[in-house]
Amino acid sequence: MSALLRRLIEDLRCLPGVGPKSAQRMAYQLLERDREGGRRLAATLAEAMDGIGHCRRCRDYCETDVCAICQDGNRDRHLLCVVEGPIDLAAIEQATGYRGNYFVMHGRLSAIDGRGPRELGLDLLAERLREEDVQELIIATNATVEGEATAHYLAELARAAGVRASRLAHGVPLGGELEFVDRGTLALAFGSRQAL
Amino acid sequence: MSALLRRLIEDLRCLPGVGPKSAQRMAYQLLERDREGGRRLAATLAEAMDGIGHCRRCRDYCETDVCAICQDGNRDRHLLCVVEGPIDLAAIEQATGYRGNYFVMHGRLSAIDGRGPRELGLDLLAERLREEDVQELIIATNATVEGEATAHYLAELARAAGVRASRLAHGVPLGGELEFVDRGTLALAFGSRQAL
Repeated sequence: MSALLRRLIEDLRCLPGVGPKSAQRMAYQLLERDREGGRRLAATLAEAMDGIGHCRRCRDYCETDVCAICQDGNRDRHLLCVVEGPIDLAAIEQATGYRGNYFVMHGRLSAIDGRGPRELGLDLLAERLREEDVQELIIATNATVEGEATAHYLAELARAAGVRASRLAHGVPLGGELEFVDRGTLALAFGSRQAL
Repeated sequence: MSALLRRLIEDLRCLPGVGPKSAQRMAYQLLERDREGGRRLAATLAEAMDGIGHCRRCRDYCETDVCAICQDGNRDRHLLCVVEGPIDLAAIEQATGYRGNYFVMHGRLSAIDGRGPRELGLDLLAERLREEDVQELIIATNATVEGEATAHYLAELARAAGVRASRLAHGVPLGGELEFVDRGTLALAFGSRQAL
């Protein structure tokens, strides 16, 4: 195998979930059938790695100073939704009709990983809560131990700024059969049952 | 999601086996954790798509005029092994102690796909059989219907040039339990049983 081909296979492995076998398959497939696609990917990748930064207001990925959502004058500036990562933001945009703004932490509070409020940009969030007319902080962290701890911290932050805080509802997922729901979720859903 | 990020996710899908979800995961992972790896992949990919061509003698992928194996004076020029693709060549190099030369067809004879002898470079192969001192043509096509048909054609080519032809042995794979071997293979292995 030529040195350049070997290097291509090696470098493809920086992609998550790509081992030696799939990297080899990718390299040969591009060479055999889609050199044009490979060239386009190379150009876009180079442009993206250098060009994509963080939005100055919400910290979501974008190649401009302020992202499209933050620039959109039609969105409700009274609502601010905090998420752990950009994928969560994309999921909420796709699934819900939410029309407020966002704040992306790029992580969660974690003593082990050395991620404190500063690493998550929470000083910027606190500043926005103080200075803008936010009326509700929607906390959409993951339902994990660290996500819950982060949610608690965010709720404190909102209280200090005199802003109402809310949290996504937890419970049995739609279509979930009680038999297969884990005990913790079932206990929680039972405890927070709602009147009909 | 920003336009550039959307384009990155779209372009990553030219890789085989990468759907919308994994492309998204790859893009975020590179942005979040490995921009340096992404830049390196972009550079290598651009270089490979334009720089990797075919060896003038064996047609394997390489970025030089003649590949390293064909240039290697220590390999046995009396042996020539024909394979369907570069992956087969790599597999034989890794698994066997074969020290002869190769010829890569980049496909097999297929009426449906419009691949005849010319598309597989078999005129070049016939020329080598005529002009070089090849003593054995080892036919290592896949054990599929089209692979068998191609093997038959290659054997004729060898006969016409007065070169001995051989074919990889078929039979029960090592570690294969008879119970689970398909009927065709089992019948073939039974028929071509060897004296001990």
